[in-house]
Amino acid sequence: MGIVLSGGTIVTAADYYQADLRMEGEQITAIGHGIRQGSDQVLTVEGCFLFPGGIDPHTHFDLPVGQTVTADDFASGTKAALLGGTTTIIDFATQFKGETLALALANWHAKAGGKSYTDYGFHMAITEWNDRIAREMDRLVQEEGVSSFKFYLAYKNLLQVDDGVLLEALGRSKENGALICLHCENGDLVQRLVKDALAQGNRAPFHHALTRPSVAEREATARAISLAEAAQAPLYIVHLTCREALQGVVDAKVRGVEVFGETCPQYLLLDSSLYQGEGFEGAKYVMSPPLRSPHDQEALWHGLRAGVLDTVATDHCSFNYRGQKELGLEDFSKIPNGIPGVEHRMGLLYTYGVASGKIGINQFVALTATKPAQLFGLFPRKGTIAVGSDADIVVWDPWATSVITAPTQHQRVDYTPYEGFRQIGTAVHVFLRGRQVVCAGKISEEGPGGVYLHRKPFGKRG
Amino acid sequence: MGIVLSGGTIVTAADYYQADLRMEGEQITAIGHGIRQGSDQVLTVEGCFLFPGGIDPHTHFDLPVGQTVTADDFASGTKAALLGGTTTIIDFATQFKGETLALALANWHAKAGGKSYTDYGFHMAITEWNDRIAREMDRLVQEEGVSSFKFYLAYKNLLQVDDGVLLEALGRSKENGALICLHCENGDLVQRLVKDALAQGNRAPFHHALTRPSVAEREATARAISLAEAAQAPLYIVHLTCREALQGVVDAKVRGVEVFGETCPQYLLLDSSLYQGEGFEGAKYVMSPPLRSPHDQEALWHGLRAGVLDTVATDHCSFNYRGQKELGLEDFSKIPNGIPGVEHRMGLLYTYGVASGKIGINQFVALTATKPAQLFGLFPRKGTIAVGSDADIVVWDPWATSVITAPTQHQRVDYTPYEGFRQIGTAVHVFLRGRQVVCAGKISEEGPGGVYLHRKPFGKRG
Amino acid sequence: MGIVLSGGTIVTAADYYQADLRMEGEQITAIGHGIRQGSDQVLTVEGCFLFPGGIDPHTHFDLPVGQTVTADDFASGTKAALLGGTTTIIDFATQFKGETLALALANWHAKAGGKSYTDYGFHMAITEWNDRIAREMDRLVQEEGVSSFKFYLAYKNLLQVDDGVLLEALGRSKENGALICLHCENGDLVQRLVKDALAQGNRAPFHHALTRPSVAEREATARAISLAEAAQAPLYIVHLTCREALQGVVDAKVRGVEVFGETCPQYLLLDSSLYQGEGFEGAKYVMSPPLRSPHDQEALWHGLRAGVLDTVATDHCSFNYRGQKELGLEDFSKIPNGIPGVEHRMGLLYTYGVASGKIGINQFVALTATKPAQLFGLFPRKGTIAVGSDADIVVWDPWATSVITAPTQHQRVDYTPYEGFRQIGTAVHVFLRGRQVVCAGKISEEGPGGVYLHRKPFGKRG
Amino acid sequence: MGIVLSGGTIVTAADYYQADLRMEGEQITAIGHGIRQGSDQVLTVEGCFLFPGGIDPHTHFDLPVGQTVTADDFASGTKAALLGGTTTIIDFATQFKGETLALALANWHAKAGGKSYTDYGFHMAITEWNDRIAREMDRLVQEEGVSSFKFYLAYKNLLQVDDGVLLEALGRSKENGALICLHCENGDLVQRLVKDALAQGNRAPFHHALTRPSVAEREATARAISLAEAAQAPLYIVHLTCREALQGVVDAKVRGVEVFGETCPQYLLLDSSLYQGEGFEGAKYVMSPPLRSPHDQEALWHGLRAGVLDTVATDHCSFNYRGQKELGLEDFSKIPNGIPGVEHRMGLLYTYGVASGKIGINQFVALTATKPAQLFGLFPRKGTIAVGSDADIVVWDPWATSVITAPTQHQRVDYTPYEGFRQIGTAVHVFLRGRQVVCAGKISEEGPGGVYLHRKPFGKRG
Repeated sequence: MGIVLSGGTIVTAADYYQADLRMEGEQITAIGHGIRQGSDQVLTVEGCFLFPGGIDPHTHFDLPVGQTVTADDFASGTKAALLGGTTTIIDFATQFKGETLALALANWHAKAGGKSYTDYGFHMAITEWNDRIAREMDRLVQEEGVSSFKFYLAYKNLLQVDDGVLLEALGRSKENGALICLHCENGDLVQRLVKDALAQGNRAPFHHALTRPSVAEREATARAISLAEAAQAPLYIVHLTCREALQGVVDAKVRGVEVFGETCPQYLLLDSSLYQGEGFEGAKYVMSPPLRSPHDQEALWHGLRAGVLDTVATDHCSFNYRGQKELGLEDFSKIPNGIPGVEHRMGLLYTYGVASGKIGINQFVALTATKPAQLFGLFPRKGTIAVGSDADIVVWDPWATSVITAPTQHQRVDYTPYEGFRQIGTAVHVFLRGRQVVCAGKISEEGPGGVYLHRKPFGKRG
Repeated sequence: MGIVLSGGTIVTAADYYQADLRMEGEQITAIGHGIRQGSDQVLTVEGCFLFPGGIDPHTHFDLPVGQTVTADDFASGTKAALLGGTTTIIDFATQFKGETLALALANWHAKAGGKSYTDYGFHMAITEWNDRIAREMDRLVQEEGVSSFKFYLAYKNLLQVDDGVLLEALGRSKENGALICLHCENGDLVQRLVKDALAQGNRAPFHHALTRPSVAEREATARAISLAEAAQAPLYIVHLTCREALQGVVDAKVRGVEVFGETCPQYLLLDSSLYQGEGFEGAKYVMSPPLRSPHDQEALWHGLRAGVLDTVATDHCSFNYRGQKELGLEDFSKIPNGIPGVEHRMGLLYTYGVASGKIGINQFVALTATKPAQLFGLFPRKGTIAVGSDADIVVWDPWATSVITAPTQHQRVDYTPYEGFRQIGTAVHVFLRGRQVVCAGKISEEGPGGVYLHRKPFGKRG
Repeated sequence: MGIVLSGGTIVTAADYYQADLRMEGEQITAIGHGIRQGSDQVLTVEGCFLFPGGIDPHTHFDLPVGQTVTADDFASGTKAALLGGTTTIIDFATQFKGETLALALANWHAKAGGKSYTDYGFHMAITEWNDRIAREMDRLVQEEGVSSFKFYLAYKNLLQVDDGVLLEALGRSKENGALICLHCENGDLVQRLVKDALAQGNRAPFHHALTRPSVAEREATARAISLAEAAQAPLYIVHLTCREALQGVVDAKVRGVEVFGETCPQYLLLDSSLYQGEGFEGAKYVMSPPLRSPHDQEALWHGLRAGVLDTVATDHCSFNYRGQKELGLEDFSKIPNGIPGVEHRMGLLYTYGVASGKIGINQFVALTATKPAQLFGLFPRKGTIAVGSDADIVVWDPWATSVITAPTQHQRVDYTPYEGFRQIGTAVHVFLRGRQVVCAGKISEEGPGGVYLHRKPFGKRG
Repeated sequence: MGIVLSGGTIVTAADYYQADLRMEGEQITAIGHGIRQGSDQVLTVEGCFLFPGGIDPHTHFDLPVGQTVTADDFASGTKAALLGGTTTIIDFATQFKGETLALALANWHAKAGGKSYTDYGFHMAITEWNDRIAREMDRLVQEEGVSSFKFYLAYKNLLQVDDGVLLEALGRSKENGALICLHCENGDLVQRLVKDALAQGNRAPFHHALTRPSVAEREATARAISLAEAAQAPLYIVHLTCREALQGVVDAKVRGVEVFGETCPQYLLLDSSLYQGEGFEGAKYVMSPPLRSPHDQEALWHGLRAGVLDTVATDHCSFNYRGQKELGLEDFSKIPNGIPGVEHRMGLLYTYGVASGKIGINQFVALTATKPAQLFGLFPRKGTIAVGSDADIVVWDPWATSVITAPTQHQRVDYTPYEGFRQIGTAVHVFLRGRQVVCAGKISEEGPGGVYLHRKPFGKRG
């Protein structure tokens, strides 16, 4: 027995057409007219779009940061994701200093196992490197389905690695099929500016932005590209935020460098004037890199439209304003970095991108699902609507409107940076591997059904 | 009764998966497993790719040029196209001085009607402009299905228009939904260099290239982009050939200008050293813009891979070496400009792009079919494999190899610029709107079955 | 008998040192200590700078424009120049349609002869081109001391030439030693925008700026550079105003193109917000290109400091607000284009450039005197303080301050665009070929003593 | 009693004129006609140029490197310099790990004192940084006349500093008036490539070049500029060699960053094909950065002409081929890095720059004398021919020709990288602070007369 979604408009990264879609078991089995079989259950979805389930390749759930831990864990985070139309997340398992990658991975499996409402994979964030870690990296790619590894050029003395480590990792990735992901801000520069700011008594949240200027990102992005170019290895730049970094990526692509860029809704929709909010309000927007100028937002939209940015992720890393953000009341550098967003990525990009005419609807699918799947070894199982792919389907009602507010969100955090933002369109039904997990905008009662995804090495198809 | 292609791998601009494909009447009706209906005819295509029929958006068939006319007409040209996997061409109907657009269009309908083996549309090339022509342009878009218009910045005193005309056309296009196509070489500069060369007694074919340097294209491309930017109108640049012009397009895209770039196999695979051939051999490669350097070829490949070039067309405009190219034996400027290529576009791009790893197989489809269809108002009827689209299907055998030679080509011209080029893959079967028109590499005996395509205005979907 | 200036600080494009300067006859004969001869007259100039007399290479005196003529003629204009520290001007003799260059030159000699207080030369502005004019161009360089020729890419149907003419002129200049000067705005684009604006009823002065956007200048500058590059001829771009045009010049220089850029005080100090002035006030700033943004100003200052802009001229072309600018009261496109400035160039650049730290004092001399002399065939006779050079010396009191106001200016025009601008430093004494022509800020009573300067071909020294 | 040089053509960074020059004591006292005083000694220099004595701001004399020491010490090096027309050198005093700057400075004073034939100053190369060193830096600027400090982004684990140290130094330099000089190659990348090369058994000299690719310099240059931009401090980039780094400098200048670029004759005249020499010959050209391509050479010449490169130095660091370069016979990474050149800088740049028309003669003076003096706190005492400046004069005979060969050079090293290079022009007489130290191409017999130069802080005049 299968399920047939009847009368919807199927939208992929390339196509846009009306047809019935049939799923059976966990997969899509047919698309077309006259495909219904006798015992099939039929759901009429006329007037709706069928999108591939969203893939958010950048979340931080249940992450210890300093003395605290993110507000969302895998349960609350993925439930919110699902309600927003995201059926797969890739979280950053993090190796803390002294840990093996195996331990870090086990830790993250423990956090997610049995709790996740979406399917999930792990990148591995590496903060300490040696020959043993290098060999572990090979093993994770080959045996554990972890085919992407993140390094930080920021967070001096904490997470930051030097260029030598990055080069070793890039070199290794060429051999083992990993994709290196990079946080590009110059940590030495940030550290210096923070030190200077604090020395001058500048402790309010807006100094967070002033001490992480665009030049820090431009520099680190340019450096990363140069090193990847020298190593002839692909590179994925997480949360790109500014015009100058974008230009670096574009120029590199045209030079033939295999570099990919991710941005996030916050960098497209919010700007640095928010740090000037009353009292401590600015803390709600403290993340790294920080929000930039409207000039940068415009560049990022052009980058999406021109196809030189590859993905839109969230960098979801939520902290409550009360009790968590407030840790930095007296010192901006102690404010936990990060904002929530996994719930609203699809809606925001649809509303302010597609509905406003800034990007096309096929680009929307590419940015939120297809490209993440392709880059991170999940395609074509995930990321598209095609026969044989997992039946991760979002039935999107383009006529529904809503307003984002903290009280009505499903993310487990006491504010939203998008408070009051209007949305056009909503994920009315969601299917995950053939099971309906959201029905009429409500989560089904079956509990978390997400499974761990063994991801393929970079560049491998099928 | 339908036809089912069974067991092939369907490749679109986004997808790659194994499934059966069913067509009935002129369209694709279903894709998947278990879609066969009782009376269907089944063709097993295991091991083959199914590509959307190729669309070559830049051909010149049956075109009078000076005292001669192109070697290929619509019959020979489209037959060759079909055998190479191209099921739709868009030819340049040309308004000659003194003609109305209506007359020009009628002329081209007369040339193509009943002769074309592929489906076909017309761009309209405008060489004379006034208010009446402007109004005709509106009518062609609205009533005649001609939604793209070409102007020349080259060919001083013949086809060249000045910036004022271009601006009027761009302004008009914003209103009427046309897409302006542009040949970007600075005709004044070329004229000057040709005059100087001839004055110095430089009459051999390689002076063709020397008198049309990259700077002439860089300049005209930059100018065209600036004017389109000022007019806030979209622009399509035909046959882009060099690194500097590419950089101009990239920078414009990132600035948010809606500019599109086309290149051709000859600029990817042949270089200007060919003008140095023995005797008059160089004449075989006389086209405008001319072949460039390997340095430029590399840039174009990077541009394709990075997604900043949008289409690969042929600018097929064939002249026989004997009797036609020879018109310029004593004076390179009298050599008819153009080369054949419509037959080999798909094979060359597959072989030297996909099989060599320079571009992905989805990019191949995007460049040869999807993007041309989208830009020129044929999508989703043409350009993809999706339910409801025309059943224009190329069954591509990736294991077949061949060698291009003049004696075995189907283009009606006495040489090929790709003589001796090896090819991987071949269009073993081809379907046009549900009819099999190529079977096992042979054209079916039914005769020309192509129809005229009313194209939608730019940016209109469905 | 000579004159010795004693105790001043001599400043050239390279040097800065204290020494006595001795002139005898029309030239500088010695610099140093112990150079005074028995009968010399000594003027103590301690605490003052000695600059080479300023050279303004871009003025329009006594120029008929439409139904009117500029407010300043050679008498009033050069008197004002002298009082501001400028001892040489190069005016644009203009060939009107139908005129020979010989006639145009004779016209300008008649305007200037016996009236000019400064030495003077002529560029020749060419608005009509044919083989006879080309030959006349040769003769003017060789026999008449006119070694620079200006063309317009703006003013469609009036002054604008097409690319073919420009290429012929560039080619000719390579042979005859002329330097081509170019007004870079795309006249077709401007014409189109003006037409559109008027059609929409937009008639106020600020539409002047909106109809001459930066993109028109960027385009024409890029085109001009490409043509000069192709012709391998040097090129001088007059009144460069915007960041994008500057970037074009920089990139060309680094590619090895011999291109030079001029800007003007108005583009450095005034911005387009002035077009928003009350009533018809904006007309006071109507010039072409128009004033730009503060963002562009910043770029121009950087260009000066980095040495990629070569000269600061005024484009002095004055019209009274009453009676002249008012011709455009009902239609911005009828406002005569141009502003006064020859009197204040040195003071403004010293004040807002040198005294503010934006450029060095040697750069100030290079921009206002040395580079103009070198580029336009006057060096080393003019443009520096060196033994053997003309004794054109400005004694500059860096402690004097003043305020620019219309009532106290010497330019013969009823307003100044710099009303209320404060100035640091003043030309207290001025010597022209050894004669003191300004004494304590007052013009000497001897009457106009300027002579016509036969200028050498481009690139010729000594 | 003074000395008068009579009849020569004085050339400065701005001027070019014929006049007598009188010196008395150590300085120039007068320039002009009729300046001779009764008892003066007169030297007729008709037909010759008088240049300011050259300043080579980048030498390494008597430098310990690994197990060896440079072939030239201060005696041999400065004698050769003088014969080539260079009257001032600035050598790199080097703090080795564990040393105070005071000790390093004392070491270098000991090496140079009483031995130097030219005047000399010291930069201080810092390889270890802490708060004490930072305070010493202040003291060296204020009390010791050392106003420039060099850091290395190359030589991992030896000399390389991280970005944090560089930022501290840049910040400090803003306060204390130092100019930071930087060796821009990414040391981590070089280390990695060297390690890989050796692991693959690649041990020949040409692997030196392959392991220090342009991308390593482009990256480090871009990074350095970003950090200087963030710190708002000036920056001097030593030995810039490639097109991409040059572009970085140009773009930064136009953005308003105060960045200066130095290149060297070897990068202008020699290319990387020399590493392919027979046997171990390539070792003669082993230096860092390595020689680049002809494409890069062309860019550097354009950079000089366009004024975006500021100085031409030598990075003289000589090692004998026999016994020293041979230390790397079995392993390119053990070849001591560096080549001789201080003797031939003026002659080579004059011959291949001025005489060939690539740069102007004033630019020659600016690059070899004026700009080094200005940037490094020696102007106007050094670097120009002006009244009051030190009488460091090179009498240059532009008619003399010669050929560079190892046996006839004065550098104390057993080869020259310029073997067989022809030279036009020679330093026939040289004066140092009013004393003739080279007479008819021979060094005077008085012995070393150079004095230590207390240099002023950056940006300070007079």
